[in-house]
Amino acid sequence: MSAYSPIGPVVGMVGAGQLARMTQQSAIALGVELRVLANTPDESAARVIVDTRLGDYRELADLREFAGGCHAITFDHEHVPTEHIRALAADGFAVRPGADALVHAQDKAVMRERLTSFGAPCPAWARVSAVAEVSAFADEHGWPVVLKAIRGGYDGRGVWVCRTPSEVEEALQTGVPLMVEAFVPFERELAVLVARSPHGQGVSYPVVETVQQDGICVEVLAPAPGLDPEDAAEAQRVALQIAHELGVTGLLAVEMFQTSGGLVVNELAMRPHNSGHWTIDGSRTSQFEQHLRAVLDLPLGSPSMSAPVVVMANLLGGDDPDLFKRYEHVMAHDPGIKLHFYGKEVRPGRKIGHVTAVGDDLDTVRARARHAAVYLTTGEYT
Amino acid sequence: MSAYSPIGPVVGMVGAGQLARMTQQSAIALGVELRVLANTPDESAARVIVDTRLGDYRELADLREFAGGCHAITFDHEHVPTEHIRALAADGFAVRPGADALVHAQDKAVMRERLTSFGAPCPAWARVSAVAEVSAFADEHGWPVVLKAIRGGYDGRGVWVCRTPSEVEEALQTGVPLMVEAFVPFERELAVLVARSPHGQGVSYPVVETVQQDGICVEVLAPAPGLDPEDAAEAQRVALQIAHELGVTGLLAVEMFQTSGGLVVNELAMRPHNSGHWTIDGSRTSQFEQHLRAVLDLPLGSPSMSAPVVVMANLLGGDDPDLFKRYEHVMAHDPGIKLHFYGKEVRPGRKIGHVTAVGDDLDTVRARARHAAVYLTTGEYT
Repeated sequence: MSAYSPIGPVVGMVGAGQLARMTQQSAIALGVELRVLANTPDESAARVIVDTRLGDYRELADLREFAGGCHAITFDHEHVPTEHIRALAADGFAVRPGADALVHAQDKAVMRERLTSFGAPCPAWARVSAVAEVSAFADEHGWPVVLKAIRGGYDGRGVWVCRTPSEVEEALQTGVPLMVEAFVPFERELAVLVARSPHGQGVSYPVVETVQQDGICVEVLAPAPGLDPEDAAEAQRVALQIAHELGVTGLLAVEMFQTSGGLVVNELAMRPHNSGHWTIDGSRTSQFEQHLRAVLDLPLGSPSMSAPVVVMANLLGGDDPDLFKRYEHVMAHDPGIKLHFYGKEVRPGRKIGHVTAVGDDLDTVRARARHAAVYLTTGEYT
Repeated sequence: MSAYSPIGPVVGMVGAGQLARMTQQSAIALGVELRVLANTPDESAARVIVDTRLGDYRELADLREFAGGCHAITFDHEHVPTEHIRALAADGFAVRPGADALVHAQDKAVMRERLTSFGAPCPAWARVSAVAEVSAFADEHGWPVVLKAIRGGYDGRGVWVCRTPSEVEEALQTGVPLMVEAFVPFERELAVLVARSPHGQGVSYPVVETVQQDGICVEVLAPAPGLDPEDAAEAQRVALQIAHELGVTGLLAVEMFQTSGGLVVNELAMRPHNSGHWTIDGSRTSQFEQHLRAVLDLPLGSPSMSAPVVVMANLLGGDDPDLFKRYEHVMAHDPGIKLHFYGKEVRPGRKIGHVTAVGDDLDTVRARARHAAVYLTTGEYT
């Protein structure tokens, strides 16, 4: 890594969505010059980052030009082709996470192979391409089964819960490479966010509960209410082990199912994650600052909470495009509510922001976050 | 005020120093599009704000062009000519604070006249232009006396503590309009930061102690240690009264002396203030978010602290320009320390950033902040 300019290090983030936007808040404090690769100048992060470069993350030439002068390259999403990441590393760029780690967040089959190899708890799974293979899998593990696109799915897209062979048939018609997993009858969903730096330091945030609706995270409760301390420690141990085994540099979010038989790993993400947005207002070190520190191989920050209970609720676009006429009520109603808007025009169902409430009592804090989120989205008073 | 775009309101801040830079962190969360008027593109805020306009804040034409399309105009410093602010308001722009308020932070004599008119505690003072006038004042109030430039002083510049008529002579030779004040034998310096919105809502942050060296604030302790709750309430009452009487919109920082005879108002600032930097990490609402909310006439946020004790220490440039080689030690030594760099090249004595520590015990928290600040500046281990 070259020496920094007198102004500080330069970090290049491929992608310019809300994760890059919120990373800018931490970059400003750390004296990090944040550069993003955007598709268009009106994307969420491009609105707030001076050094926005326009280009196509699927083109190696664009990535190479973007990377010039950066002390570290990282990602706002997981869609950069693995071979391009290898090429950038071969050029000498510090790409964090590297291709050998990131592929586990890009390819669900590679992830399952690797995780099962070192005993991380996973559901039964198999690569499949025909109904007969899925039926054979279901004969062994039972219906329903979960079909997943091996690459490219997110927010519930690319996932099909199938109860019959004819439902499997439908999913297979999409033509994308698929895998099947045993359906996990879970009690709730948890997430563990950890950070790992190139020199091997790791930290874990408290385990949180994530509440999903239609495959989209709507609420995060920190810490996960009523979680047995031993289960919490085990979840953190598994997440740190995955980060270590995979050689992750930067953040790793491990989504898990809590079941009567223990924890099961669901998905991985290697970047700041929706389940960690609560850390901006509720932790001494936000996940965005932590990610910057990790990719620059700086010592990691304290993941401790700044209040006993923190609840984050996502804002999804409603039918009314004028978000800001509902701004005032929410601020007046609750002077402690923290609002985070992503600079995106409202479209129904689109993630346009989030709200965070902190306090001592879960029911109260959760009601505050929900009130703000529902009112901002719908204008309805809960 | 015109309706907001789907993306949010636009706030124009005249000046592009670290106050505008840190305001951007809050603007990103609130969905506020922040525009700044900079002298050069490498100023602190210009590095992190996309909508940076270059121009001269002393030129009305530049200010008018800058203001177009802004829902509110506010300031990173107090140097914009009062008559230009009046002209912008006459054009229909929402300038906050307005000229009639801001003049009290620009002109110390106007400030003293007004404050004494409604009984805010001030030292004896007079406009002066000759040694004989100062000597007459000293005959009544005693030596030493404090000579101040009526306009333009800051960080100890434009202030002369004179013990003899010959020292007065020297100060008078600068040629700027001066006033004299009785020297206040204070026990310590306090500051109260309040916000007031155009519709009249006011909030006060806890009273803090500010520690000065050579006229520059080096440390802020929140809350002011051992301050009698009645004195704290009185300080907040005085600050809110000043904000109300002067019609302040936005933030008002009131610097006070604590004396054996009670509180005395020293200086006013109408913008985010060094004595409020601790709020980024130590309050539920940072002063920068509060200022944006106030100038947009939105309901104000909670000023409550997120930890029992918060200490902020300024980073002043030392002899070694390479700040970032000392980065790692400080982060490794104290994972909870919060670093804030202003994107400025190091020059001896220049404010280049600040650090904040939070916790339960004043001595511990203060030692942590001081360790980080001293090490970053000098490389010395305290």
